[in-house]
Amino acid sequence: MTYYPEPILKLIDSLAKLPGIGKKTGERLALHILHAPNHEAATLAADIIDLKNRIQLCSVCFSLSDKDKCRICADPSRDKTVICVVENPTDMAAIEKSKAFCGTYHILGGALSPIDGIGPDDIRIKELFKRADPSQIKEIILATKTNVEGEVTASYILDRLKRTNIKITRIASGIPMGGDLQYIDPLTMQTALEKRYGF
Amino acid sequence: MTYYPEPILKLIDSLAKLPGIGKKTGERLALHILHAPNHEAATLAADIIDLKNRIQLCSVCFSLSDKDKCRICADPSRDKTVICVVENPTDMAAIEKSKAFCGTYHILGGALSPIDGIGPDDIRIKELFKRADPSQIKEIILATKTNVEGEVTASYILDRLKRTNIKITRIASGIPMGGDLQYIDPLTMQTALEKRYGF
Repeated sequence: MTYYPEPILKLIDSLAKLPGIGKKTGERLALHILHAPNHEAATLAADIIDLKNRIQLCSVCFSLSDKDKCRICADPSRDKTVICVVENPTDMAAIEKSKAFCGTYHILGGALSPIDGIGPDDIRIKELFKRADPSQIKEIILATKTNVEGEVTASYILDRLKRTNIKITRIASGIPMGGDLQYIDPLTMQTALEKRYGF
Repeated sequence: MTYYPEPILKLIDSLAKLPGIGKKTGERLALHILHAPNHEAATLAADIIDLKNRIQLCSVCFSLSDKDKCRICADPSRDKTVICVVENPTDMAAIEKSKAFCGTYHILGGALSPIDGIGPDDIRIKELFKRADPSQIKEIILATKTNVEGEVTASYILDRLKRTNIKITRIASGIPMGGDLQYIDPLTMQTALEKRYGF
Protein backbone atom coordinates (compact mmCIF):
# COMPACT_ATOMS: atom_id res chain seq x y z
CA MET A 1 0.00 0.00 0.00
CA THR A 2 3.06 2.21 -0.23
CA TYR A 3 1.47 4.18 -3.08
CA TYR A 4 -0.54 6.21 -0.56
CA PRO A 5 1.10 9.14 1.21
CA GLU A 6 2.07 8.57 4.82
CA PRO A 7 -0.88 10.30 6.61
CA ILE A 8 -3.29 7.98 4.76
CA LEU A 9 -1.20 4.89 5.55
CA LYS A 10 -1.08 5.87 9.22
CA LEU A 11 -4.87 6.26 9.43
CA ILE A 12 -5.38 2.93 7.61
CA ASP A 13 -3.09 1.29 10.19
CA SER A 14 -4.98 2.84 13.10
CA LEU A 15 -8.37 1.89 11.66
CA ALA A 16 -7.18 -1.66 10.97
CA LYS A 17 -6.63 -2.10 14.71
CA LEU A 18 -10.41 -1.90 15.27
CA PRO A 19 -12.28 -5.22 15.48
CA GLY A 20 -13.59 -6.52 12.15
CA ILE A 21 -11.72 -3.89 10.16
CA GLY A 22 -8.80 -4.97 7.98
CA LYS A 23 -6.48 -3.09 5.65
CA LYS A 24 -9.03 -3.17 2.83
CA THR A 25 -11.92 -1.69 4.85
CA GLY A 26 -9.44 0.65 6.52
CA GLU A 27 -8.45 1.95 3.08
CA ARG A 28 -12.08 2.53 2.15
CA LEU A 29 -12.83 4.31 5.44
CA ALA A 30 -9.67 6.46 5.27
CA LEU A 31 -10.51 7.62 1.74
CA HIS A 32 -14.08 8.34 2.84
CA ILE A 33 -12.80 10.43 5.75
CA LEU A 34 -10.42 12.21 3.39
CA HIS A 35 -13.30 13.29 1.18
CA ALA A 36 -15.80 13.93 3.97
CA PRO A 37 -16.43 17.53 5.08
CA ASN A 38 -13.79 18.82 7.51
CA HIS A 39 -16.28 19.22 10.36
CA GLU A 40 -17.36 15.59 10.04
CA ALA A 41 -13.78 14.30 10.43
CA ALA A 42 -13.14 16.77 13.25
CA THR A 43 -16.29 15.59 15.03
CA LEU A 44 -15.26 11.94 14.71
CA ALA A 45 -11.79 12.67 16.12
CA ALA A 46 -13.23 14.81 18.93
CA ASP A 47 -15.81 12.14 19.80
CA ILE A 48 -13.05 9.53 20.18
CA ILE A 49 -11.07 11.77 22.54
CA ASP A 50 -14.24 12.82 24.36
CA LEU A 51 -15.22 9.21 24.93
CA LYS A 52 -11.90 8.37 26.55
CA ASN A 53 -11.90 11.52 28.68
CA ARG A 54 -15.50 11.66 29.81
CA ILE A 55 -16.56 8.06 30.38
CA GLN A 56 -16.17 6.86 33.94
CA LEU A 57 -17.83 4.17 36.03
CA CYS A 58 -20.99 4.98 37.99
CA SER A 59 -20.10 5.16 41.68
CA VAL A 60 -23.18 3.10 42.57
CA CYS A 61 -23.58 0.40 39.93
CA PHE A 62 -20.25 0.64 37.99
CA SER A 63 -21.93 1.04 34.62
CA LEU A 64 -20.46 3.35 31.99
CA SER A 65 -21.37 6.95 32.72
CA ASP A 66 -20.33 10.51 31.99
CA LYS A 67 -21.29 11.59 35.51
CA ASP A 68 -20.58 10.31 39.03
CA LYS A 69 -23.99 8.60 39.06
CA CYS A 70 -25.20 6.98 35.83
CA ARG A 71 -28.48 7.92 34.20
CA ILE A 72 -30.27 4.91 35.64
CA CYS A 73 -29.04 5.32 39.23
CA ALA A 74 -29.93 9.02 39.03
CA ASP A 75 -33.39 8.35 37.61
CA PRO A 76 -36.05 8.66 40.38
CA SER A 77 -38.49 6.54 38.35
CA ARG A 78 -36.19 3.48 38.47
CA ASP A 79 -36.89 1.01 41.27
CA LYS A 80 -33.88 1.17 43.60
CA THR A 81 -35.05 -1.87 45.59
CA VAL A 82 -34.29 -4.23 42.69
CA ILE A 83 -30.73 -4.84 41.50
CA CYS A 84 -29.98 -6.73 38.32
CA VAL A 85 -26.46 -8.18 38.43
CA VAL A 86 -24.70 -8.41 35.04
CA GLU A 87 -21.16 -9.17 33.98
CA ASN A 88 -20.52 -6.11 31.83
CA PRO A 89 -22.04 -2.95 30.32
CA THR A 90 -22.94 -4.58 27.00
CA ASP A 91 -25.09 -7.11 28.89
CA MET A 92 -26.77 -4.22 30.68
CA ALA A 93 -27.33 -2.49 27.33
CA ALA A 94 -28.99 -5.66 26.00
CA ILE A 95 -31.38 -5.75 28.98
CA GLU A 96 -32.18 -2.04 28.60
CA LYS A 97 -32.97 -2.64 24.93
CA SER A 98 -35.74 -5.07 25.95
CA LYS A 99 -37.41 -2.31 28.03
CA ALA A 100 -38.56 -5.09 30.37
CA PHE A 101 -36.68 -3.95 33.47
CA CYS A 102 -37.15 -0.80 35.50
CA GLY A 103 -34.88 -1.50 38.48
CA THR A 104 -31.17 -0.74 38.79
CA TYR A 105 -28.02 -2.64 37.88
CA HIS A 106 -24.80 -3.88 39.34
CA ILE A 107 -22.00 -4.42 36.82
CA LEU A 108 -19.53 -7.01 38.09
CA GLY A 109 -16.93 -6.33 35.44
CA GLY A 110 -16.51 -10.02 34.65
CA ALA A 111 -17.34 -13.44 36.05
CA LEU A 112 -15.63 -15.86 38.41
CA SER A 113 -13.30 -18.14 36.53
CA PRO A 114 -10.95 -20.33 38.59
CA ILE A 115 -9.24 -21.54 35.40
CA ASP A 116 -8.31 -17.97 34.45
CA GLY A 117 -7.48 -17.15 38.05
CA ILE A 118 -10.39 -14.70 38.42
CA GLY A 119 -11.65 -14.86 41.99
CA PRO A 120 -14.24 -12.86 43.99
CA ASP A 121 -11.70 -10.08 44.64
CA ASP A 122 -11.08 -9.56 40.91
CA ILE A 123 -14.66 -8.56 40.09
CA ARG A 124 -17.01 -6.21 41.95
CA ILE A 125 -18.71 -8.82 44.14
CA LYS A 126 -17.73 -7.18 47.44
CA GLU A 127 -19.35 -3.98 46.20
CA LEU A 128 -22.53 -5.93 45.48
CA PHE A 129 -22.59 -7.40 48.99
CA LYS A 130 -22.13 -3.88 50.35
CA ARG A 131 -25.22 -2.76 48.40
CA ALA A 132 -27.21 -5.84 49.53
CA ASP A 133 -28.79 -4.19 52.57
CA PRO A 134 -32.08 -6.01 53.28
CA SER A 135 -33.64 -2.76 54.56
CA GLN A 136 -33.07 -1.17 51.14
CA ILE A 137 -33.10 -4.02 48.63
CA LYS A 138 -36.01 -6.37 47.99
CA GLU A 139 -34.70 -8.41 45.09
CA ILE A 140 -31.44 -9.21 43.37
CA ILE A 141 -31.75 -10.67 39.87
CA LEU A 142 -28.73 -12.66 38.80
CA ALA A 143 -28.30 -11.98 35.08
CA THR A 144 -24.78 -13.27 34.62
CA LYS A 145 -24.22 -15.19 31.38
CA THR A 146 -25.58 -18.74 31.05
CA ASN A 147 -22.15 -20.22 30.48
CA VAL A 148 -20.01 -21.97 33.11
CA GLU A 149 -18.40 -18.81 34.50
CA GLY A 150 -21.74 -17.01 34.66
CA GLU A 151 -23.44 -19.90 36.44
CA VAL A 152 -20.56 -20.23 38.90
CA THR A 153 -20.74 -16.51 39.60
CA ALA A 154 -24.52 -16.67 40.12
CA SER A 155 -24.15 -19.66 42.47
CA TYR A 156 -21.46 -17.91 44.45
CA ILE A 157 -23.58 -14.80 44.94
CA LEU A 158 -26.69 -16.86 45.76
CA ASP A 159 -24.74 -18.85 48.31
CA ARG A 160 -23.58 -15.71 50.08
CA LEU A 161 -26.92 -13.89 50.02
CA LYS A 162 -29.49 -16.65 50.49
CA ARG A 163 -29.56 -16.20 54.26
CA THR A 164 -30.58 -12.54 53.95
CA ASN A 165 -34.19 -11.43 53.54
CA ILE A 166 -33.48 -10.39 49.98
CA LYS A 167 -35.20 -12.42 47.31
CA ILE A 168 -32.60 -13.80 44.93
CA THR A 169 -33.71 -14.71 41.43
CA ARG A 170 -31.96 -15.96 38.30
CA ILE A 171 -32.81 -14.67 34.86
CA ALA A 172 -34.91 -17.38 33.13
CA SER A 173 -33.58 -19.83 30.65
CA GLY A 174 -34.84 -19.42 27.17
CA ILE A 175 -31.50 -17.96 26.44
CA PRO A 176 -29.42 -20.69 24.80
CA MET A 177 -26.71 -22.15 27.06
CA GLY A 178 -23.37 -20.61 26.19
CA GLY A 179 -25.17 -17.72 24.50
CA ASP A 180 -23.84 -14.22 24.92
CA LEU A 181 -26.39 -11.73 26.34
CA GLN A 182 -25.04 -9.08 24.02
CA TYR A 183 -26.46 -10.82 20.95
CA ILE A 184 -29.89 -11.83 22.26
CA ASP A 185 -32.89 -10.24 20.55
CA PRO A 186 -35.03 -7.97 22.76
CA LEU A 187 -38.09 -10.28 22.79
CA THR A 188 -36.12 -13.27 24.04
CA MET A 189 -34.53 -11.00 26.61
CA GLN A 190 -37.97 -9.79 27.74
CA THR A 191 -39.25 -13.38 28.05
CA ALA A 192 -36.18 -14.38 29.99
CA LEU A 193 -36.77 -11.53 32.43
CA GLU A 194 -40.47 -12.29 32.88
CA LYS A 195 -39.84 -16.00 33.49
CA ARG A 196 -37.17 -15.49 36.10
CA TYR A 197 -37.59 -17.92 38.98
CA GLY A 198 -36.68 -18.07 42.65
CA PHE A 199 -34.28 -20.63 44.10
CA MET B 1 -29.70 3.16 22.29
CA THR B 2 -30.40 5.75 24.97
CA TYR B 3 -29.01 3.45 27.67
CA TYR B 4 -25.48 4.49 26.79
CA PRO B 5 -24.11 7.76 28.17
CA GLU B 6 -23.95 10.61 25.71
CA PRO B 7 -20.23 10.48 24.77
CA ILE B 8 -20.68 6.87 23.63
CA LEU B 9 -23.85 7.70 21.70
CA LYS B 10 -22.09 10.59 19.98
CA LEU B 11 -19.20 8.41 18.88
CA ILE B 12 -21.59 5.69 17.66
CA ASP B 13 -23.38 8.36 15.58
CA SER B 14 -20.11 9.63 14.12
CA LEU B 15 -18.88 6.13 13.31
CA ALA B 16 -22.23 5.21 11.74
CA LYS B 17 -21.68 7.97 9.16
CA LEU B 18 -18.79 5.96 7.68
CA PRO B 19 -19.60 3.74 4.68
CA GLY B 20 -20.62 0.18 5.55
CA ILE B 21 -20.84 0.93 9.26
CA GLY B 22 -24.25 0.97 10.92
CA LYS B 23 -25.38 1.56 14.51
CA LYS B 24 -24.59 -2.04 15.49
CA THR B 25 -21.01 -2.02 14.21
CA GLY B 26 -20.64 1.54 15.49
CA GLU B 27 -21.60 0.30 18.97
CA ARG B 28 -19.05 -2.50 18.79
CA LEU B 29 -16.30 -0.14 17.60
CA ALA B 30 -17.13 2.53 20.19
CA LEU B 31 -16.96 -0.01 23.02
CA HIS B 32 -13.69 -1.34 21.63
CA ILE B 33 -12.25 2.18 21.55
CA LEU B 34 -13.52 2.75 25.10
CA HIS B 35 -11.59 -0.26 26.35
CA ALA B 36 -8.53 0.21 24.13
CA PRO B 37 -5.41 1.78 25.62
CA ASN B 38 -5.59 5.58 25.76
CA HIS B 39 -2.68 6.04 23.37
CA GLU B 40 -4.38 3.88 20.74
CA ALA B 41 -7.54 6.02 20.78
CA ALA B 42 -5.46 9.19 20.82
CA THR B 43 -3.47 7.97 17.81
CA LEU B 44 -6.64 7.18 15.89
CA ALA B 45 -8.09 10.63 16.58
CA ALA B 46 -4.79 12.35 15.72
CA ASP B 47 -4.48 10.37 12.49
CA ILE B 48 -7.94 11.50 11.39
CA ILE B 49 -7.08 15.16 12.00
CA ASP B 50 -3.64 14.72 10.46
CA LEU B 51 -5.12 13.21 7.32
CA LYS B 52 -7.41 16.17 6.79
CA ASN B 53 -4.66 18.70 7.50
CA ARG B 54 -1.76 17.16 5.64
CA ILE B 55 -3.20 15.59 2.51
CA GLN B 56 -3.16 17.84 -0.53
CA LEU B 57 -3.16 17.23 -4.26
CA CYS B 58 0.14 16.83 -6.06
CA SER B 59 0.77 20.02 -8.06
CA VAL B 60 1.81 17.95 -11.11
CA CYS B 61 -0.49 14.92 -11.32
CA PHE B 62 -3.22 15.77 -8.74
CA SER B 63 -2.81 12.51 -6.85
CA LEU B 64 -3.09 12.49 -3.05
CA SER B 65 0.10 13.67 -1.42
CA ASP B 66 1.48 15.07 1.80
CA LYS B 67 3.94 17.24 -0.12
CA ASP B 68 3.70 19.67 -3.04
CA LYS B 69 4.94 16.92 -5.37
CA CYS B 70 3.72 13.36 -4.78
CA ARG B 71 6.10 10.47 -4.19
CA ILE B 72 5.80 9.27 -7.80
CA CYS B 73 6.31 12.69 -9.44
CA ALA B 74 9.30 13.30 -7.13
CA ASP B 75 10.83 9.89 -7.84
CA PRO B 76 13.72 10.26 -10.36
CA SER B 77 13.40 6.58 -11.33
CA ARG B 78 9.85 7.04 -12.71
CA ASP B 79 9.58 7.69 -16.43
CA LYS B 80 8.27 11.27 -16.77
CA THR B 81 7.69 10.86 -20.53
CA VAL B 82 4.74 8.50 -19.98
CA ILE B 83 1.49 9.69 -18.38
CA CYS B 84 -1.23 7.28 -17.33
CA VAL B 85 -4.58 9.07 -17.12
CA VAL B 86 -6.98 7.74 -14.46
CA GLU B 87 -10.25 8.96 -13.01
CA ASN B 88 -9.35 8.92 -9.33
CA PRO B 89 -6.69 8.01 -6.77
CA THR B 90 -8.12 4.54 -6.06
CA ASP B 91 -7.71 3.63 -9.76
CA MET B 92 -4.13 4.83 -9.52
CA ALA B 93 -3.64 2.72 -6.40
CA ALA B 94 -4.95 -0.35 -8.27
CA ILE B 95 -2.42 0.21 -11.07
CA GLU B 96 0.43 0.76 -8.58
CA LYS B 97 -0.53 -2.49 -6.85
CA SER B 98 0.14 -4.33 -10.15
CA LYS B 99 3.74 -2.99 -10.18
CA ALA B 100 3.42 -3.05 -13.99
CA PHE B 101 3.82 0.68 -14.60
CA CYS B 102 6.82 2.88 -13.99
CA GLY B 103 5.68 6.13 -15.60
CA THR B 104 3.69 8.95 -14.00
CA TYR B 105 -0.02 9.61 -13.57
CA HIS B 106 -2.65 12.25 -14.20
CA ILE B 107 -5.70 12.08 -11.96
CA LEU B 108 -8.74 13.62 -13.65
CA GLY B 109 -10.88 13.66 -10.54
CA GLY B 110 -13.84 12.09 -12.32
CA ALA B 111 -15.13 11.36 -15.83
CA LEU B 112 -17.18 13.26 -18.37
CA SER B 113 -20.89 12.64 -17.88
CA PRO B 114 -23.31 14.83 -19.83
CA ILE B 115 -26.26 13.27 -17.97
CA ASP B 116 -24.85 14.39 -14.62
CA GLY B 117 -23.78 17.72 -16.11
CA ILE B 118 -20.06 16.98 -15.75
CA GLY B 119 -18.20 18.64 -18.64
CA PRO B 120 -14.50 19.08 -19.49
CA ASP B 121 -14.22 22.09 -17.15
CA ASP B 122 -15.42 20.06 -14.16
CA ILE B 123 -12.54 17.58 -14.25
CA ARG B 124 -8.80 18.21 -14.70
CA ILE B 125 -8.68 17.77 -18.49
CA LYS B 126 -7.29 21.26 -19.19
CA GLU B 127 -4.44 20.46 -16.81
CA LEU B 128 -3.73 17.27 -18.78
CA PHE B 129 -3.58 19.20 -22.06
CA LYS B 130 -1.17 21.64 -20.41
CA ARG B 131 1.10 18.71 -19.50
CA ALA B 132 0.81 17.20 -22.99
CA ASP B 133 3.90 18.88 -24.39
CA PRO B 134 5.23 16.68 -27.26
CA SER B 135 8.80 17.73 -26.45
CA GLN B 136 8.43 16.23 -22.96
CA ILE B 137 5.84 13.48 -23.27
CA LYS B 138 6.12 10.38 -25.48
CA GLU B 139 2.99 8.46 -24.53
CA ILE B 140 -0.32 9.05 -22.79
CA ILE B 141 -2.13 5.89 -21.62
CA LEU B 142 -5.87 6.39 -21.18
CA ALA B 143 -6.83 4.26 -18.17
CA THR B 144 -10.26 5.72 -17.46
CA LYS B 145 -12.88 3.15 -16.47
CA THR B 146 -14.40 0.88 -19.13
CA ASN B 147 -17.95 2.13 -18.52
CA VAL B 148 -19.83 4.69 -20.65
CA GLU B 149 -18.42 7.76 -18.85
CA GLY B 150 -14.87 6.38 -18.92
CA GLU B 151 -15.08 5.60 -22.65
CA VAL B 152 -16.53 9.02 -23.43
CA THR B 153 -13.72 10.66 -21.45
CA ALA B 154 -11.07 8.59 -23.23
CA SER B 155 -12.58 9.45 -26.64
CA TYR B 156 -12.68 13.14 -25.80
CA ILE B 157 -9.01 13.19 -24.76
CA LEU B 158 -7.96 11.11 -27.79
CA ASP B 159 -9.83 13.46 -30.10
CA ARG B 160 -8.02 16.50 -28.71
CA LEU B 161 -4.55 14.97 -28.62
CA LYS B 162 -4.43 12.76 -31.71
CA ARG B 163 -2.93 15.54 -33.84
CA THR B 164 0.11 15.90 -31.54
CA ASN B 165 3.19 13.71 -31.82
CA ILE B 166 2.32 12.01 -28.54
CA LYS B 167 1.39 8.33 -28.80
CA ILE B 168 -2.07 7.87 -27.26
CA THR B 169 -3.00 4.38 -26.03
CA ARG B 170 -5.98 2.87 -24.17
CA ILE B 171 -5.62 0.28 -21.42
CA ALA B 172 -6.69 -3.13 -22.83
CA SER B 173 -10.08 -4.54 -22.00
CA GLY B 174 -11.00 -8.20 -22.20
CA ILE B 175 -11.31 -11.27 -20.07
CA PRO B 176 -9.59 -10.99 -16.66
CA MET B 177 -6.60 -13.31 -16.22
CA GLY B 178 -7.74 -16.54 -14.62
CA GLY B 179 -11.31 -15.58 -15.43
CA ASP B 180 -13.73 -18.32 -16.40
CA LEU B 181 -15.32 -17.63 -19.79
CA GLN B 182 -18.56 -19.05 -18.42
CA TYR B 183 -19.04 -16.12 -16.08
CA ILE B 184 -17.96 -13.27 -18.36
CA ASP B 185 -20.70 -10.78 -19.21
CA PRO B 186 -21.65 -10.55 -22.94
CA LEU B 187 -20.25 -7.02 -23.38
CA THR B 188 -16.82 -8.01 -22.05
CA MET B 189 -16.89 -11.13 -24.22
CA GLN B 190 -17.77 -9.04 -27.28
CA THR B 191 -14.90 -6.64 -26.51
CA ALA B 192 -12.48 -9.51 -25.92
CA LEU B 193 -13.36 -10.97 -29.32
CA GLU B 194 -13.19 -7.66 -31.16
CA LYS B 195 -9.84 -6.77 -29.61
CA ARG B 196 -8.31 -10.21 -30.26
CA TYR B 197 -4.74 -10.06 -31.44
CA GLY B 198 -2.54 -12.19 -33.65
CA PHE B 199 0.76 -13.78 -32.58
